[in-house]
Amino acid sequence: MARIVMKFGGTSVGDIERINNVAAHVKEEYDAGNEVAVVVSAMSGETNRLVSLCRDISAFHDAREYDVVVSAGEQVSVGLLAMALNKIDVPARSWLGWQFPIMTSSVHGSARIQDIDTQSLEAQFADGRVAVIAGFQGLSPENRITTLGRGGSDTSAVAVAAALHADRCDIYTDVDGVYTTDPRLVPDARRLKKISYEEMLEMASLGSKVLQTRSVELAMAHKVKLQVRSSFDDPAKKKEVSEDGIAGTMVCSEEEIMEQEIVSGIAYSKDEAKITLRRVADQPGTAAAIFGPLADAAINVDMIVQNISADGGHTDMTFTVPNDDLPRAQQVIESMQDTIGFAEVESTSGLAKISIVGVGMRSHAGVAQKMFTELADKSINIQVISTSEIKISVLVDADYTELGVRALHAAFNLDGGDEGAG
Amino acid sequence: MARIVMKFGGTSVGDIERINNVAAHVKEEYDAGNEVAVVVSAMSGETNRLVSLCRDISAFHDAREYDVVVSAGEQVSVGLLAMALNKIDVPARSWLGWQFPIMTSSVHGSARIQDIDTQSLEAQFADGRVAVIAGFQGLSPENRITTLGRGGSDTSAVAVAAALHADRCDIYTDVDGVYTTDPRLVPDARRLKKISYEEMLEMASLGSKVLQTRSVELAMAHKVKLQVRSSFDDPAKKKEVSEDGIAGTMVCSEEEIMEQEIVSGIAYSKDEAKITLRRVADQPGTAAAIFGPLADAAINVDMIVQNISADGGHTDMTFTVPNDDLPRAQQVIESMQDTIGFAEVESTSGLAKISIVGVGMRSHAGVAQKMFTELADKSINIQVISTSEIKISVLVDADYTELGVRALHAAFNLDGGDEGAG
Repeated sequence: MARIVMKFGGTSVGDIERINNVAAHVKEEYDAGNEVAVVVSAMSGETNRLVSLCRDISAFHDAREYDVVVSAGEQVSVGLLAMALNKIDVPARSWLGWQFPIMTSSVHGSARIQDIDTQSLEAQFADGRVAVIAGFQGLSPENRITTLGRGGSDTSAVAVAAALHADRCDIYTDVDGVYTTDPRLVPDARRLKKISYEEMLEMASLGSKVLQTRSVELAMAHKVKLQVRSSFDDPAKKKEVSEDGIAGTMVCSEEEIMEQEIVSGIAYSKDEAKITLRRVADQPGTAAAIFGPLADAAINVDMIVQNISADGGHTDMTFTVPNDDLPRAQQVIESMQDTIGFAEVESTSGLAKISIVGVGMRSHAGVAQKMFTELADKSINIQVISTSEIKISVLVDADYTELGVRALHAAFNLDGGDEGAG
Repeated sequence: MARIVMKFGGTSVGDIERINNVAAHVKEEYDAGNEVAVVVSAMSGETNRLVSLCRDISAFHDAREYDVVVSAGEQVSVGLLAMALNKIDVPARSWLGWQFPIMTSSVHGSARIQDIDTQSLEAQFADGRVAVIAGFQGLSPENRITTLGRGGSDTSAVAVAAALHADRCDIYTDVDGVYTTDPRLVPDARRLKKISYEEMLEMASLGSKVLQTRSVELAMAHKVKLQVRSSFDDPAKKKEVSEDGIAGTMVCSEEEIMEQEIVSGIAYSKDEAKITLRRVADQPGTAAAIFGPLADAAINVDMIVQNISADGGHTDMTFTVPNDDLPRAQQVIESMQDTIGFAEVESTSGLAKISIVGVGMRSHAGVAQKMFTELADKSINIQVISTSEIKISVLVDADYTELGVRALHAAFNLDGGDEGAG
């Protein structure tokens, strides 16, 4: 017997048929003798509909009332799923955020979970009942409904799993796990059996939309084993489960991954643009003078590279922004020319960022060189390089995205069947 | 300054424009210096949508989960209305049933309000804020969401008004008051300024759908002054308000109506059918033997008339049912012939019930005779008569409905402008 938290997103509960399919998944775990808590999102499209209603009333609305309106979506789906479970003889009841309660901060619209009283849930388990929990919502100290921000149901699930000391938190999505890269781009991409929290964080923030970054951070902090699985499997059919019982991809501590690959995956994001400031005064406060106004304009700056000062007292500064934000970013920078004191500004759009991610590269010299050589062999020009402990990112012309990702995928031996890194 | 509860139904909050219009109505009362609580229903169509989702999951669903799902409708509308009020500088916040709480019985789907803790509301008023309250919902002693049954928001509003000792409870609907009869049938029908609770109950149960019967009963028990008003008025325009400040129709105690008309209104309902049992054994238990099986079959029996036994030990029994239920009612009766012991059964469909209602008829002899004479003058044959203290109902051929209603409306001096009975 295990204690399991299962999480289903909006697409998985998008209509009655899918809700019944989710109930069948839950029944399978329940019938196997497990203690099960299920966290669900609003039916797909519903949160958007509710958000639109709020916007139609007023562009500047009270965030507390916004939370009252949008949390109604999850309220509907937990009620329906509890009904669907009861129908197939799985005793279940719904729980709303205010009923445990799931206590959060008072920051409406993006509240943080502070405490979950698990007493009622433990009582449910003792009675052999499944708890169906509304994701995304909680209760403020002022006794008002809060929400955790878009995609917050992943975070709810991990928080519930941590509070319950669950053996596993299964995140059911519309993909069947985490892949070495985007399978639409590289047909040879293979599903990873295991990936470390750190790698998942890099993959998530690099554009792999499987898990919300915040939920991975929370899982890492509380050592919650996350499993990414597909909700569209037919639960009646026998699933492909590896020898160690993993159906999708397990996100866990590095130590639990026996033989670590050097590189676990290749991430990419298109639609990048870069801006270079020539001959910037190389003195304290320059970076703040540049990036402060950009942050104020809500422009998301990603890679920042500053070259070593070539002449006395000047340097070149390059940074990337999303393509769409390029015109605004240029405007901001140009308006600051006198303050910042640079000679000229250059910008290039239509770029892509390709990154290799893997905790194994820490202990392996030559990973970067291998990456650069491989790209050079394909005549792909690297425009900007940025690295972290477990990641190397390069900026290239977006036309070379597919070519670069495929070359790197092969070079780091990621091609192959559904073998996994574990 | 007065303390006012305003109630708006689903049609009144059916879209963003209408919600803004409701906010304008509220602002008017707020700006006049009143303490205002607003009770709202779900946006029109929303409750039906949620009920359908429940039915699609299962025909036999847990009533507790049903309440979780359908109460989400009011949750959305209170949040939106609070936003709309804040936008026009009326400080407001939403309140859900569990937040006061509004305590109810545990009978999910048709719970009864037991207690309303008004402490938070009083604090709102002290702060000069408007309370926007979700109608139709409450909290059970088991800390679960309950609903009051369809149309329950009227009841919520009256209960809140009673708990707050409000000066008035204004029910905004899609009509601008209670009329002497259906204005579609009688163009000369006039709006009543005042009507007593007792008369309103008779009018409501006779098919005038302005107010939910239960809310009128509750208002009568707690002496809550109800005012029926139109929500489609433009609040910016000066409204027709009578000398005593009534904009629609006031439902109040008989004593508050100075000069009582003999007859206040004419109600009617078409689609009635009657069944007569000939030569029923005139002995104790016969009525129970007839109406028990009909109640078991969920057939709604309305008028029941039993003639005095003509011969030794036998009587004729007549009762009415809705046209649609006639075939089933006949089937039930025929299957009981041996048990009940009647000679034969006759039935007639296509009938209508016309009723005159008025507390004044208590003290006026000859009202019944006047009614019967008037109908006879128009050659309308009366098939069944039934009376209460403040009502006389007759059953006639449905083809004569308009003729009969119009004749009685004129005969009892109800024709005329918007004069009112007050």
